[in-house]
Amino acid sequence: MSVSRAIVLLSGGLDSATTLAIARSEGFVCRTLAVRYGQRHFAELEAARRVSRSLGAFEHRQMTVELAGIGGSALTDRNLAVPDSPTTGVPAAGIPITYVPARNTMLLSLALGWAEVARATDIFVGVNAIDYSGYPDCRPEFIAAFQSMAALATRAGVEGAPVRIRAPLQQMTKAQIIQTGVMLGVDYASTVSCYQATADGKACGRCDSCRLRKEGFAAAGVPDPTRYV
Amino acid sequence: MSVSRAIVLLSGGLDSATTLAIARSEGFVCRTLAVRYGQRHFAELEAARRVSRSLGAFEHRQMTVELAGIGGSALTDRNLAVPDSPTTGVPAAGIPITYVPARNTMLLSLALGWAEVARATDIFVGVNAIDYSGYPDCRPEFIAAFQSMAALATRAGVEGAPVRIRAPLQQMTKAQIIQTGVMLGVDYASTVSCYQATADGKACGRCDSCRLRKEGFAAAGVPDPTRYV
Repeated sequence: MSVSRAIVLLSGGLDSATTLAIARSEGFVCRTLAVRYGQRHFAELEAARRVSRSLGAFEHRQMTVELAGIGGSALTDRNLAVPDSPTTGVPAAGIPITYVPARNTMLLSLALGWAEVARATDIFVGVNAIDYSGYPDCRPEFIAAFQSMAALATRAGVEGAPVRIRAPLQQMTKAQIIQTGVMLGVDYASTVSCYQATADGKACGRCDSCRLRKEGFAAAGVPDPTRYV
Repeated sequence: MSVSRAIVLLSGGLDSATTLAIARSEGFVCRTLAVRYGQRHFAELEAARRVSRSLGAFEHRQMTVELAGIGGSALTDRNLAVPDSPTTGVPAAGIPITYVPARNTMLLSLALGWAEVARATDIFVGVNAIDYSGYPDCRPEFIAAFQSMAALATRAGVEGAPVRIRAPLQQMTKAQIIQTGVMLGVDYASTVSCYQATADGKACGRCDSCRLRKEGFAAAGVPDPTRYV
């Protein structure tokens, strides 16, 4: 029987942990990849390592990208503040200041390089276009376009077996994601979602990401294990 | 009059130097980007800095990507040797061992991030599909697919002004590239193309890249300024 190999992008947050659990439940041997690109929420990288181990990934690697100070996002530029989320259920219109320019393109391209070397057939990414912050590179049409590009970019594509980009959370609500993860044994206490988590992983409870997560646990009827400051 | 801004990927080699000269000749204010990703030919990074300055770029930045040892290429993995080029004019069939998995996808994604922040309308890359080493991510169809993906990935794309990916050397022979560069004032003595250049930028004269460069100068009728070991 042949083994199916996957690369799973892991941020340390709730969505990517659930994505790893889904990939494992489909029988994939998973290599997990966390990328340090200057984000404020550094505690996520430790969380990624814990999540990888606890969900039985084959291997975890952390890559580092030094963006030479191009900034442009509240997540990487300390001169820009992470805004509080509006207390209503409706996110602010447009693309928020926490958007990191071309982040998912960069993360997926690193995963693509590793997929080629490890001969992985699938790359899993936890993007979601329902309960999300409105980033352009979380939309289904972006994922599809990246897959088409990857087929032309790589040895695997030339040889007729292009990598698949899998986004299993794409059409799920935050509550559905949490329910799926609980069913698959994800321990959400070890995940960190906050855009400005403290060094020991405590969440602010006020940013977009915290709000979406908090509302998700409430809607799912699952106790929220998040440690807030 | 509005200013046109471009990001130009600069490796320090002959092709990307010519590409910068072309972008400058079209009137672009150019920000140049060199990426250190563990390549052997480290002297190229110094060359990139020199080339940027001598061709009047507005700003040069160097980003670093630590690929966490995924290897898979003779250019980044010291356990793999850079092969001598066949002495005939025909490159070896297939994708060579010097291919770096998903390299151009990664380089372009970093350029894309900077383009968003700097509000650049064009990204220039010196890929070429005539006198080249046979890498899949140098082909016109790859460049077109990256541009389509980028339009969906970015704020600029959402706002109706997607970035253009420009590959002006795409259909030129190495001789044509050199003739164009000479016309535009490129000093090829300061460029480094060799896959295994010495620390002070001397070329091996035997790898694919050296062979293509050497034959290019001969065909262009231009004296070869390369310093060989």
